[in-house]
Amino acid sequence: MPDRRSPIQDFLELIHARYADFREGEVATYIPELANANPESFGICVATADGFVYEVGDSRQEFTIQSISKPFVYGLALDERGPEHMFTKVGVEPSGDAFNAISLHKTSGCPLNPMINAGAIATTGQIGASPPEPCFERILEMFSRYTGHAMHVDEAVYESESLTGHRNRAIGHLLRNFDVLEGDPTAAVDTYFRQCAISVNCVDLALMGATLANQGINPLTGTRAIKDTHVRSVLSVMASCGMYDFSGGWIYNVGMPAKSGVAGGVVAVLAGQLGIGVYSPRLDAQGNSARALQVCRELSQAWQLHQFNPPFCAHTSRRMRCTGEERHSSRIRHPTERACLGEHGGQIHLFEIQGNLAFATVEPIIRDVVRCTGRRGVILDFHHVTGINHVASQLLADLADALSHQGTAIFFTSTQQLPLLRQEVGSHLADASVIDRLFRFRSTDAALEWCEDELLRELMPAGPLTVNDLRLFEIASGLADEELGVFSGLITRRPYAPGDYVIRRGDEATSLFLVTKGIVGVWLGDHESGKRVASFSVGTMVGEMAFLDGARRSANVVAEGDVECAVFELEDFNRLLESHPQLHTTILRNIGVSLATKLRKVNEDVRILIAERQ
Amino acid sequence: MPDRRSPIQDFLELIHARYADFREGEVATYIPELANANPESFGICVATADGFVYEVGDSRQEFTIQSISKPFVYGLALDERGPEHMFTKVGVEPSGDAFNAISLHKTSGCPLNPMINAGAIATTGQIGASPPEPCFERILEMFSRYTGHAMHVDEAVYESESLTGHRNRAIGHLLRNFDVLEGDPTAAVDTYFRQCAISVNCVDLALMGATLANQGINPLTGTRAIKDTHVRSVLSVMASCGMYDFSGGWIYNVGMPAKSGVAGGVVAVLAGQLGIGVYSPRLDAQGNSARALQVCRELSQAWQLHQFNPPFCAHTSRRMRCTGEERHSSRIRHPTERACLGEHGGQIHLFEIQGNLAFATVEPIIRDVVRCTGRRGVILDFHHVTGINHVASQLLADLADALSHQGTAIFFTSTQQLPLLRQEVGSHLADASVIDRLFRFRSTDAALEWCEDELLRELMPAGPLTVNDLRLFEIASGLADEELGVFSGLITRRPYAPGDYVIRRGDEATSLFLVTKGIVGVWLGDHESGKRVASFSVGTMVGEMAFLDGARRSANVVAEGDVECAVFELEDFNRLLESHPQLHTTILRNIGVSLATKLRKVNEDVRILIAERQ
Repeated sequence: MPDRRSPIQDFLELIHARYADFREGEVATYIPELANANPESFGICVATADGFVYEVGDSRQEFTIQSISKPFVYGLALDERGPEHMFTKVGVEPSGDAFNAISLHKTSGCPLNPMINAGAIATTGQIGASPPEPCFERILEMFSRYTGHAMHVDEAVYESESLTGHRNRAIGHLLRNFDVLEGDPTAAVDTYFRQCAISVNCVDLALMGATLANQGINPLTGTRAIKDTHVRSVLSVMASCGMYDFSGGWIYNVGMPAKSGVAGGVVAVLAGQLGIGVYSPRLDAQGNSARALQVCRELSQAWQLHQFNPPFCAHTSRRMRCTGEERHSSRIRHPTERACLGEHGGQIHLFEIQGNLAFATVEPIIRDVVRCTGRRGVILDFHHVTGINHVASQLLADLADALSHQGTAIFFTSTQQLPLLRQEVGSHLADASVIDRLFRFRSTDAALEWCEDELLRELMPAGPLTVNDLRLFEIASGLADEELGVFSGLITRRPYAPGDYVIRRGDEATSLFLVTKGIVGVWLGDHESGKRVASFSVGTMVGEMAFLDGARRSANVVAEGDVECAVFELEDFNRLLESHPQLHTTILRNIGVSLATKLRKVNEDVRILIAERQ
Repeated sequence: MPDRRSPIQDFLELIHARYADFREGEVATYIPELANANPESFGICVATADGFVYEVGDSRQEFTIQSISKPFVYGLALDERGPEHMFTKVGVEPSGDAFNAISLHKTSGCPLNPMINAGAIATTGQIGASPPEPCFERILEMFSRYTGHAMHVDEAVYESESLTGHRNRAIGHLLRNFDVLEGDPTAAVDTYFRQCAISVNCVDLALMGATLANQGINPLTGTRAIKDTHVRSVLSVMASCGMYDFSGGWIYNVGMPAKSGVAGGVVAVLAGQLGIGVYSPRLDAQGNSARALQVCRELSQAWQLHQFNPPFCAHTSRRMRCTGEERHSSRIRHPTERACLGEHGGQIHLFEIQGNLAFATVEPIIRDVVRCTGRRGVILDFHHVTGINHVASQLLADLADALSHQGTAIFFTSTQQLPLLRQEVGSHLADASVIDRLFRFRSTDAALEWCEDELLRELMPAGPLTVNDLRLFEIASGLADEELGVFSGLITRRPYAPGDYVIRRGDEATSLFLVTKGIVGVWLGDHESGKRVASFSVGTMVGEMAFLDGARRSANVVAEGDVECAVFELEDFNRLLESHPQLHTTILRNIGVSLATKLRKVNEDVRILIAERQ
């Protein structure tokens, strides 16, 4: 059984071992229950924004959340009462003071921020207020959404806190005095005592952090814990005020929004990436867990988690850019059309973009694509885009609008997984015809084919190639007049209506087809429900592979529009072996040559596709 | 001439127009020269981390940098004196006080942070100190690195500042009193006056911000302006203290580290993404440009630039994962080998990764790859990786080490543009043989081919397929014994030494080759210097395309190791048309069928490659 250990887990265990003997600081003693904590307890948990959990040590040891509750309850208050209301109750400025300082604004009496006790009590007082509701249950439910399981209160700690919380009661009355709290301040203070006594462990804290990192959605349960627009507000107050009068030093050294609790817990969040929960009861002079601070600093340094060390830079969204000279659709075309596209394909531009699109990642794309104004066709392939925010959607909508009105056909392909893009573009584009065309093609190949067709229509204004002279087909190459006469005599012209099957998958191959009018499409699976993998224009040959090796038909071939084919029966071909052996050999060789030509083209396509990745 | 305007430029102009009539606040008057500023002046500039500049309004209007100099000089002090020294001189905690407050630490006398005047003067006093040097020149040079051009001092503002700066002189003497400044404090205060009087415009500010966003390198000049390890420190003090006693509100509302100056300038930075410079002289009560605050808030909201709204989430680095059952190398193999790989290819795993690799982006890859422990071969393709930090490098090195020692052959391909990866891996892996193998193949195809060969060697222990019976070749399929005798009589066995050319590009095609021993490689361009695009194992046919259509050879074919081919001359083939027309037709048809088989395989490859992107 191979050892499938992760180097990330290994490193967490190393850090845990390194600080196992770190004994600086003192366990909080201001209430008796906290003083009972085992000072040796030490757990670490890291949860990624997609919910993967690494844990080590006493990561399942329960302790009370204490002040770590503050930013989460503030988030709930923002959700319930709105930011405008909350600004009238509590500020967002760091106080520069210790956690229990009663820092109220000189004139309004509002606490300076929701991370000091005064601000937290003012915040708790807003939950489910007027008319009074059982607001504590809302708080408990909120924490359950963050952790993914039912939460409970450590009643002993609550009782202990309630018995000794006179300073907090004084704060409650001061807040009532300034009308920051309305009604009886005792209820708000009591609810605050209960919220601080909620029992958590390191995994809970890390998942709470990961939920904030994941824009407010618990990555394991998919439950939204807080509105996405309030996540940045919660992280902002954690960043500026979360570690009391060590907040500046914390941001400087650790660089993640964080919140500590007097029981010894710390939660830290790296937005978009992960949450960290650490538990160790000994506190430093600022009231933060001394060992948790060391661990967070070590992890931040080792893994470069500082928020101002972003792993991200703008140009990662540009994946590939090419023109219609370099890349072709899956349409098989007559040599004259191929030559024309080879010469004028620069009128078509194709961009493949990747990753998460936001302002900084979409800006370089806008910059590139704007330069294509005036070209015939521009295709943006979104297949490797993993996310898009509304800013990127709107900028792309503006871009599509501008190019369309300048006469460039622009297509967004592979956008199925990006409903936001379609929705945003839909809401920003005035002209419905632009929207319809923009999303007309799911596949880049189909959009490319359309652009090629348009370009050919423009450059060969006599209309689509029509082939009445069989000599134009490769199969008849080099035939003497007399041989051509014999060959023509064996050909039957057959018309097809739109949607007619020219070839059915699984059938015996009894004939090959020369397209003399229209276009036929090759489908894996049924027409419409299956996948269209190629198509053939006038002047090309279809179905010769099975014709040659006698295999069953491997795909359906369907008429797109009115089609006419010149049909050559295998029976007639075989008879030629006796009657006109030379003609038979020439045709056989021509089919082989045609296959060789196609193989060369496809080999070249593969080389281009592979080269993109090598 | 099409209009190639960017929607981003359009939006900047919209914002500029929206706030053109915004007249809140007052121009600073504490020194006469500042009071002369035109209150209507209004410029905005946004510079991306790769150096693209958008600007509108009075973006080239010069003004004095004032307090915006503080974080940049602090960065220079970190570079020159190191963080340990600087911690003894100035803290990093927000003071909660106004910009001109003399907030010194109660016991040490150190200013609380480098953004208040006291901290800035203490910081300036560290530049080029002991023995005294012309330190102001170092400051001016430093700003030139950020802006990309020579900087100068507005002498009138300097004179005015120097005449009226008694409060700052008082601060200097207080700092001298606490030994935070050594020697004559007048020099430090004078240098501080000069640094505040440096003339800048919005484009300068935006490029200074973009340089910080670009990890300390000016994106236009490529010059390093500050050590990369100090960038996060500068941004941290800007974030916690940059906007005086509005710093908390700024982070909450705008969410970018920023610094304002009393002349009306503001610089804001979104790490990894962009810098913003705004100029408008009217200040609000906190001493920040009132209009700049509105503009930054609008841009942050419209473009979602808040640092806790990251565009990034972890899973964007996983691009594609497949096994050796689904994807094959470019080696053309005999049907028995193809069948074996089809059955056991799950022993080979291929991962394509993309984007910028840091902890959070590489963690999911580690998680996936660790599960492959015990498989035969694992390939990580880095072609679409745009950057990698040393954390990701080290975690990948640990991963390679672990898998190698468990007996899995692991390859990192397409790593040419990632010198850091090779360097880091080299420094972390003890076993040199692991390093050599890890980077043995530049191309994923080559690594895949090696894994396939190893797997076949293990599963077909009799050794590589050897073909003495020509009947095993597709070209001889269905021949009667007598026909086979005739065909064999036309075949010449030809040996090749390693590196011998079997086919030379441009030659006439006078023969086709059946590989009866060894492997031949197909090269575009010269062997070694060109590109190897395919290879052929024993049992396969090479060179039949040109053989058939009489084209010149399109590629070189070179023996890899000892090779033997059975050679069939075109001349002999043509003679068969007369002497054994039935045999000629069968061979011709077999070649055609072989081409059809190859075409089907390549079409399928293309479908897989395209499907990845559709």
